[in-house]
Amino acid sequence: MDLSELDLVDHHCHGLITRDLDRPEFESMLTEAAAPSALGGSLFDSQIGFALRRFCAPVLDLEPHADPDAYLARRAELGAAEVNRRMLAATGTQTFLVDTGYLPEPITTPDELAALTGGRGHEVVRLELVASQVLERSGAGAFPEAFRTELARRCATAVGVKSIAAYRAGLALGGQRPTDLAVTAAADRLLHTGSTRVADPVLHEFLVWSGIDLGMPVQFHVGYGDADTDLHRGDPLLMTDLLRATEPHGVPIMLLHTYPFHRNAGFLAQVFGHVFADVGLATHNLGARSAALVAELLELAPFGKVLFSSDAFGLAELYLLGTVLFRRGLGSFLDGGVADGAWTAADAQRVAAMIGADNARRAYRL
Amino acid sequence: MDLSELDLVDHHCHGLITRDLDRPEFESMLTEAAAPSALGGSLFDSQIGFALRRFCAPVLDLEPHADPDAYLARRAELGAAEVNRRMLAATGTQTFLVDTGYLPEPITTPDELAALTGGRGHEVVRLELVASQVLERSGAGAFPEAFRTELARRCATAVGVKSIAAYRAGLALGGQRPTDLAVTAAADRLLHTGSTRVADPVLHEFLVWSGIDLGMPVQFHVGYGDADTDLHRGDPLLMTDLLRATEPHGVPIMLLHTYPFHRNAGFLAQVFGHVFADVGLATHNLGARSAALVAELLELAPFGKVLFSSDAFGLAELYLLGTVLFRRGLGSFLDGGVADGAWTAADAQRVAAMIGADNARRAYRL
Amino acid sequence: MDLSELDLVDHHCHGLITRDLDRPEFESMLTEAAAPSALGGSLFDSQIGFALRRFCAPVLDLEPHADPDAYLARRAELGAAEVNRRMLAATGTQTFLVDTGYLPEPITTPDELAALTGGRGHEVVRLELVASQVLERSGAGAFPEAFRTELARRCATAVGVKSIAAYRAGLALGGQRPTDLAVTAAADRLLHTGSTRVADPVLHEFLVWSGIDLGMPVQFHVGYGDADTDLHRGDPLLMTDLLRATEPHGVPIMLLHTYPFHRNAGFLAQVFGHVFADVGLATHNLGARSAALVAELLELAPFGKVLFSSDAFGLAELYLLGTVLFRRGLGSFLDGGVADGAWTAADAQRVAAMIGADNARRAYRL
Repeated sequence: MDLSELDLVDHHCHGLITRDLDRPEFESMLTEAAAPSALGGSLFDSQIGFALRRFCAPVLDLEPHADPDAYLARRAELGAAEVNRRMLAATGTQTFLVDTGYLPEPITTPDELAALTGGRGHEVVRLELVASQVLERSGAGAFPEAFRTELARRCATAVGVKSIAAYRAGLALGGQRPTDLAVTAAADRLLHTGSTRVADPVLHEFLVWSGIDLGMPVQFHVGYGDADTDLHRGDPLLMTDLLRATEPHGVPIMLLHTYPFHRNAGFLAQVFGHVFADVGLATHNLGARSAALVAELLELAPFGKVLFSSDAFGLAELYLLGTVLFRRGLGSFLDGGVADGAWTAADAQRVAAMIGADNARRAYRL
Repeated sequence: MDLSELDLVDHHCHGLITRDLDRPEFESMLTEAAAPSALGGSLFDSQIGFALRRFCAPVLDLEPHADPDAYLARRAELGAAEVNRRMLAATGTQTFLVDTGYLPEPITTPDELAALTGGRGHEVVRLELVASQVLERSGAGAFPEAFRTELARRCATAVGVKSIAAYRAGLALGGQRPTDLAVTAAADRLLHTGSTRVADPVLHEFLVWSGIDLGMPVQFHVGYGDADTDLHRGDPLLMTDLLRATEPHGVPIMLLHTYPFHRNAGFLAQVFGHVFADVGLATHNLGARSAALVAELLELAPFGKVLFSSDAFGLAELYLLGTVLFRRGLGSFLDGGVADGAWTAADAQRVAAMIGADNARRAYRL
Repeated sequence: MDLSELDLVDHHCHGLITRDLDRPEFESMLTEAAAPSALGGSLFDSQIGFALRRFCAPVLDLEPHADPDAYLARRAELGAAEVNRRMLAATGTQTFLVDTGYLPEPITTPDELAALTGGRGHEVVRLELVASQVLERSGAGAFPEAFRTELARRCATAVGVKSIAAYRAGLALGGQRPTDLAVTAAADRLLHTGSTRVADPVLHEFLVWSGIDLGMPVQFHVGYGDADTDLHRGDPLLMTDLLRATEPHGVPIMLLHTYPFHRNAGFLAQVFGHVFADVGLATHNLGARSAALVAELLELAPFGKVLFSSDAFGLAELYLLGTVLFRRGLGSFLDGGVADGAWTAADAQRVAAMIGADNARRAYRL
């Protein structure tokens, strides 16, 4: 089943780098490795590298599987602006929900990104960034109230919030909403270290609950990321107490990436009414294996609880790869079911529309 | 290879609800979700929902893939008694080992359940339920001896016992048999809370050892369950110390469900002589993906250590889906091996008979 | 794609038993079970058992799928020397890196093993064995220096070292290089127990850092092993702090076996420049399922960071099965990609050469 025209809401991505990139910069942005390793050879020799040569080369007028040197030469020749325009147009994505909280260098705003496809951009507010900004001027005592006020202001034009507790303190968050007293004490401890970088379960919990109080869907980084993440603390099962506590509020919780814990995420999406899951970031990194990943997520996860995201950052190719591999993986999964008699072609089409866009529209009230 | 007539021992299931069910009740019993979520749409849009429309609709004289409304209307028209009769007859299961310890509402006894297929029912005694009943009258001091006596009485007509330690205290059980003194102290602590609900590693260990002393195979809930389970405490690898300690006794330990830890369970089934494993409950919930699950369990698990169970509860469709998907999944796994040259058709037939019924007969001495 | 002639470096295996074996001995060496279980039937009824009947029987002039009795009779008739010669010759492996630290009974040296294929043997030094030997004569105070001296002496003719921390203390090793004072204190505690068996994180860390200081690639037992291993403490994600701390030294870390944590290992191989991974031991134990395993490892792991090993010990059949199943699994993975258009046949050939031998040659400077 050809899903190349399927309407897509990319419910979690980042901005695009607009300057030209040399080869080391390009390879360093291709995967979650900080850079290629002299011990291990080129990162083009990996699932994502082969997927890039296959799917992105033709967008730059090259044959599929053009070699990396030819690819990078052509990329430089066209220039970043043209490459970005072509790659984003080829995604076919019309709606982007953009996490604006990761800015190692200047990147596109949600509107600038969406303009490349003629689509629409919405903001997802990074909780920890807002907390740091507030802490710098509020001090500990005023922090809870000041944070709530600032988050409300920021969320007035946003569609969701995002937590990176997984990177900072791990996902073993508690089932109790912390009191303002506890939050103030934690903020005080943090400020005494001379930092405003939140990395404390109490503060992460407070941030999350503040988002929930505003009715904002809360995205969580889960599982796969770069070498800064302690992956064994990024298993979404560690969130069980938090999920039990938040379910009655009816605000969606989005488990992002989730690999290699995607089956655990699927379980949570089944048993908790407010939990959704995706396999963004992993989709493009797994290349030819991403269809297997989509199938594993769709074991326990109800089809109304699965979302599409690219989690692309910076490199235009990642938006295209995340999208094309998702379209192909979901198509192959649904095709397999039709061929096997598991569901009808009509149901398969309906499920594709749900996962591609409708679930996100419903959950984020787009 | 067609296993639709394969002799089956369902070594772990529950009783059947005999009253009619309305749509909310029906959906709430379909998966491990307590109920469908307004955020997530119908639970019919999930692997199990599609499997039900495919395999159960024809049993009610509908076309495969009849839509949910038509299915539920026809189900209501036939009435629960007729639906139950048809579904159970279609399972082809002749022997049922029934956990009689979960009774949220009146359900069939093992004999009543088995009568629906003209088969035979046996009882599996839920350890924690017996413990609660004994605690209510024995007090703490007399508990160890009173429990042993009562369990022996109950097991005289049973074929195994079951532990739900995973739901209560997690599977990180110790490698030491607790002393009666330790058990009494734990019982005393529990009774002082005003409860008889066992949720303490010492008490769970005592219950398990009491079953082993009676030579009763011990079933453990492992992995997948509803939102009450802390899935990260349900990994069977946490039982390693207990498995080392119990192996010399030669009493079978049955790891139930095991998803998403089924590969871990397969490892344990290989290295510990008394460990068996199944993928019940997950089989019907995974629908079209259940064949992949069966194949993953059969990586390390010796084929003489794998069992069939449906873990069906309440809804007649679950007995049929657990059975038909197991037959198809195992058939597809064995067929694949024959086609690939991994084993002969004769060996495949022999292995199917082992996993379908012979392993259970040997382990439970049926 | 036929990889039956692919050049192979078996970067982790053990010596071969040269005496004849009776059936109980043979079955006890076939899998990671200590022995077949009366409860569970023959271990020939498992993935590895069927793989053996398929691939090894013809090497002994029997039809594929000869039954176990016929196989063992023919094996006895030919005698161990002839069986060993045939099986090893059939592997086609030219280079063996042999862990010389596990010697439950007399086995071949690296040179004797390699002579069976006309290839080359190299030694991998087991860190914990050297530590025990040194501790027996050095006492605690002199241990750090004496160990460094002895390890340097042993490594002069070796190509790597191996840690079995996973078996002894688990893989949750710290990110700090322990001081000699801390090492001495730990050695003192150990010697006071009357043992020289290292099972303490500080000592394991010291051993590993000593290997790194010598520039020796460090192999780690990870995941799958026998009943002595606590598999939940063998997840390579627990090594994250150690990997962060060791990465700047540029010395390769080899994650061995890794099942069922092979996806976690693939993640680590992507994000840490010095981490390599294999699926040895699991490959032959998974039999017909080993192709699925290879594919899962090759999701995140860059293709320049994946190695081949058999991890065979003792039984000649294991060297052949580890090899033939790896050749077939990798071939099937690469073929699938060519058929699907994921990569070209030329790239597939290049990747096969990398994984079969070139990555190991580069990492071990062979």
